[in-house]
Amino acid sequence: MSSSSPLLAELIDALRCLPGVGAKSAQRMAFHLLERERERGLKLAGVLEQAMQRIGNCSRCRNFSEEPVCALCASSSRDRHVLCVVESPTDLAAVEQATGYRGQYFVLLGRLSPLDGLGPRELGLHLLTERLAEGEVEELILATSPTVEGEATSHYLVQLARAGGVKATRLAHGVPLGGELEYVDRGTLAHAFGSRQSVE
Amino acid sequence: MSSSSPLLAELIDALRCLPGVGAKSAQRMAFHLLERERERGLKLAGVLEQAMQRIGNCSRCRNFSEEPVCALCASSSRDRHVLCVVESPTDLAAVEQATGYRGQYFVLLGRLSPLDGLGPRELGLHLLTERLAEGEVEELILATSPTVEGEATSHYLVQLARAGGVKATRLAHGVPLGGELEYVDRGTLAHAFGSRQSVE
Ligand SMILES: [Zn+2]
Ligand SMILES: [Zn+2]
Repeated sequence: MSSSSPLLAELIDALRCLPGVGAKSAQRMAFHLLERERERGLKLAGVLEQAMQRIGNCSRCRNFSEEPVCALCASSSRDRHVLCVVESPTDLAAVEQATGYRGQYFVLLGRLSPLDGLGPRELGLHLLTERLAEGEVEELILATSPTVEGEATSHYLVQLARAGGVKATRLAHGVPLGGELEYVDRGTLAHAFGSRQSVE
Repeated sequence: MSSSSPLLAELIDALRCLPGVGAKSAQRMAFHLLERERERGLKLAGVLEQAMQRIGNCSRCRNFSEEPVCALCASSSRDRHVLCVVESPTDLAAVEQATGYRGQYFVLLGRLSPLDGLGPRELGLHLLTERLAEGEVEELILATSPTVEGEATSHYLVQLARAGGVKATRLAHGVPLGGELEYVDRGTLAHAFGSRQSVE
């Protein structure tokens, strides 16, 4: 195909910036758009350009936003007494979509990793400190990943909450619902076993 | 997420024009581009816009092309005595990538389907007739799909080749290489059995 239309070859190549899209899917996508979806393809081009240029981070929670303060932070219907700390916008979306959480968020955009130059400043923890100092937040929910770096980050946040006189909680760890016990990894199983709870 | 950035929600929605991309992958793609690939995302937006607006069909072979005559038709290194007829640019790409074919192509952009208003005119067969009348083509390779409509189209093309005094050939049908016989569909198996060839 590359020999028939240089622009088509360029499009196929450019589509590969999308995660999970290899040469074959990129070609299929390009053909599909050209054959059947020119209008929507053009629309995508416009929205994509706008999004890449205009979406930055909310000055309050660091989540993606094209406004200085995002819609979630500006919303009057979200509980300002609870603040959930997540590592990334993807994690925020996961919590938002899976739970009925109606509080606010703070997005670290990473985890503490001194070797990679990611310290408290890079994670915006000065903003979080200021936020806690405002006095509105009563509970800081730590929803960092259960990885070594995520746990280290969580520990740091616990100190920060204590210094601010705010209660810190973290997500429960254990056997995932609906999973076969034999497929649960050892660490999780050991933790779940150690944290077993009495049945009423 | 939709509540944090309307533009991000719009991007996720627009990405769903891509084949095989549902709500979940679209979200993953949008986050990936925003977090890690702004430059390439912007590049994609530009190329996509250009492609949707500028890519039309070659006046000679009807394949995708941003030029009046595509690079394949204009190429001096392709054999002008052999012309392979395919239904779509996708099929052309498949032949081009799988075989060592070095002749030229003609793309029908469909198959004969009177009920859908697809007749000889819609498939550009007047162009093909003119092409054969030029006298350069010696073999017309019929690479339409082995479907009812594809076979009907193929029959029509055979007449057209005969009228033009050009030899027509079509792709061999049979058991696919590397497939287990038990998984080959009945029609193919029956055809392969009936067309069995003597072993030298
Ligand atoms: Zn915000
Ligand atoms: Zn052409």
